[in-house]
Amino acid sequence: MADYSRKQEALDYHAKPKPGKLAISVTKPFTTYGELSLAYTPGVAEPVKAIQNDPEDAFRYTSKGNLVAVITNGTAVLGLGDTGALASKPVMEGKAVLFKKFADVNVFDIEVDANDPKDFIDTVMRIAPTFGGINLEDIAAPHCFEIEKTLIERLDIPVFHDDQHGTAIIVAAGLINALELQGKQLADAKIVCMGAGAAGVASMNLLLEMGAQLDNVFMCDRKGVIHSDRDDLSEQKAQFATKTDLRTVDDAMKQADVFIGLSGPDTVSREQIGMMPAKPVVFALSNPTPEILPEDARSVRDDLIMATGRSDYPNQINNVLGFPYIFRGALDVRARRINMTMCVAAARAMGELARQPVPNSVLEAHDQDAMSFGPDYIIPSPFDPRLIDFIPPAVAQAAVDTGVARTAYPSHYPQPVVEA
Amino acid sequence: MADYSRKQEALDYHAKPKPGKLAISVTKPFTTYGELSLAYTPGVAEPVKAIQNDPEDAFRYTSKGNLVAVITNGTAVLGLGDTGALASKPVMEGKAVLFKKFADVNVFDIEVDANDPKDFIDTVMRIAPTFGGINLEDIAAPHCFEIEKTLIERLDIPVFHDDQHGTAIIVAAGLINALELQGKQLADAKIVCMGAGAAGVASMNLLLEMGAQLDNVFMCDRKGVIHSDRDDLSEQKAQFATKTDLRTVDDAMKQADVFIGLSGPDTVSREQIGMMPAKPVVFALSNPTPEILPEDARSVRDDLIMATGRSDYPNQINNVLGFPYIFRGALDVRARRINMTMCVAAARAMGELARQPVPNSVLEAHDQDAMSFGPDYIIPSPFDPRLIDFIPPAVAQAAVDTGVARTAYPSHYPQPVVEA
Repeated sequence: MADYSRKQEALDYHAKPKPGKLAISVTKPFTTYGELSLAYTPGVAEPVKAIQNDPEDAFRYTSKGNLVAVITNGTAVLGLGDTGALASKPVMEGKAVLFKKFADVNVFDIEVDANDPKDFIDTVMRIAPTFGGINLEDIAAPHCFEIEKTLIERLDIPVFHDDQHGTAIIVAAGLINALELQGKQLADAKIVCMGAGAAGVASMNLLLEMGAQLDNVFMCDRKGVIHSDRDDLSEQKAQFATKTDLRTVDDAMKQADVFIGLSGPDTVSREQIGMMPAKPVVFALSNPTPEILPEDARSVRDDLIMATGRSDYPNQINNVLGFPYIFRGALDVRARRINMTMCVAAARAMGELARQPVPNSVLEAHDQDAMSFGPDYIIPSPFDPRLIDFIPPAVAQAAVDTGVARTAYPSHYPQPVVEA
Repeated sequence: MADYSRKQEALDYHAKPKPGKLAISVTKPFTTYGELSLAYTPGVAEPVKAIQNDPEDAFRYTSKGNLVAVITNGTAVLGLGDTGALASKPVMEGKAVLFKKFADVNVFDIEVDANDPKDFIDTVMRIAPTFGGINLEDIAAPHCFEIEKTLIERLDIPVFHDDQHGTAIIVAAGLINALELQGKQLADAKIVCMGAGAAGVASMNLLLEMGAQLDNVFMCDRKGVIHSDRDDLSEQKAQFATKTDLRTVDDAMKQADVFIGLSGPDTVSREQIGMMPAKPVVFALSNPTPEILPEDARSVRDDLIMATGRSDYPNQINNVLGFPYIFRGALDVRARRINMTMCVAAARAMGELARQPVPNSVLEAHDQDAMSFGPDYIIPSPFDPRLIDFIPPAVAQAAVDTGVARTAYPSHYPQPVVEA
């Protein structure tokens, strides 16, 4: 978006013909007096009384069960930082567009003017009856950890901080496939995670859940490797403080099968990529400027598999592969939460989809003649129509299996493709 | 809704084919990678930066300017009382349907789990950046007064408690026409208001603004006439405490040109209606059971003009005549508030519309051959398509005239039909 014409195109897209990207639509017939009296008084009293009698009936008679709040306080918006609540609205509306278009989930975007975590939590708690799920978005660390933890404990609907767990799921899906192609195992892989913020912490936690070993994970922050002799660690970082002699990023990179960058632009050098053992995996996910550009990484070695957050390189780690479908599955069994098993199931299903033959519709969306599972195709395309067939069933089955679903596995769902 | 089949019809309407009455729709093209990059990253960064630079740009680049929150805590829902936040959701969704269908205003319904007014106010304040207006709904008195007053003071978008001012506007519109038909003047009319709650207080305040005399208004609560010797009055009631010898409802009814019932079922008797001077106006607005049924009132006198809140009698005082169009006009000039002048303008425009010839489309909606201004048609039909041409221009012009509009009078609007 550097040049003027593309900037203007983006502004025009948002402004014309009407401002914004969302509208409300009415899903029931409404043209006669009779329908007016059903939609509003006196007919509306009947569902009200039913819900008073049994709160679960809110899922039968209102939009709640397919309605997610995308909620932010605007403190960590895209790469822009703390924009404030109001200015974050285009992003939250964009998120709503993705939820709707990819998984038919309705979203109200809610921009909350509250930097204090307690105020934010109180606000979300009070408006929660409106919704069937809460997608927290673009909330700065460390407050995002406290906010998410508290809301999950207190609410009986899914609360999901996409910047943490959504990112983690796509990273895990891609990494499983990348390691397979490199002939390595997650249980043996030494992993450097550059960036110990919300996304880094969640990604490493999910990889640990899926079989990575804590002793093999080297989380790095601005001071280098996080280890057990450091006394400057937050609760989130401390869980990754291993007993190790490694101190610098260079120390860690010399051992690393995997580099996951969730930090900022240009934070790893060609020299450091060159230090990695044979057949490395490099995910440089800072966006729009990655930790290292693919052409720079490739200039020092030809045996790597690389992913970024950008759409103009192969293997885009894009959160849109996850959140619409994860909520779709969770909502369809009225899950009380989205737990780690459900995240693992989503990652495995997503990884499996990338290993399937790519349909023509995806080739057309990418304007390509051929595409198949391999070093340049380790995760599915966001326009793969089978995402909805793969991910929600896996998530729903995991919810049922772990006892957080209010309903049985949906009868209209196919059987899950993979097991968590 | 007494009989089973109609109850079931109302439940089915809300449940099938999908639960609820609302969905989100995406208003911009979204089928290609290019459009994905405009709607979300990286393109979305441009409107974010624009709004950071100038908060008013939120009206240019987001849905805010045509988005109203219908917000309740569920403490005074329809005739059902305190249902709680969750159970009120079908009503709030119904309100959203009316906003959308009648005036193309988008609404997010927000059910707030907060009975304490401070908690409720804090919550609305914090989520307010999301919206271009706030419609407070079904909040019990006396908290509704404090809530509305505080939010109007603190926010720079319209905050409107429809149960107060929406009702008042329709009452005023109907009463102007009824008095004209009875050959009386508002400035001279003696008015009994049965019920000193939110709607009663707001209705009398609007009538005073439009020319009624405080000495002629007799507000009645459960203890009879509110007068200056009583020491049990809330702030809202105290403003109507006149120096008068009248004590009982009977005392007041013997002088009353107008009876406005905003209280509860069966609170005025045939005998009391019989006491009124010649050519009375009786608005019995408790719903679904009015203060007195029209057939009972007519059984004691044939010179009255009567209105109720019901669709099965003539002259339905229905809030849907007001709120969609009032917000339409306020939003279209980005009004900072909805002030008394705008309410008066809305009432006068609504009254004027009832005096116009009734179009065929309205006759068809009512399944009638003929209908015209007169004792059985003192206010427009909710299905009159000219409401959108009459009310928003009047409200917008009043906003511009009183300096609360952020923009000029909209160029695409017709000139207002009446002046406030």
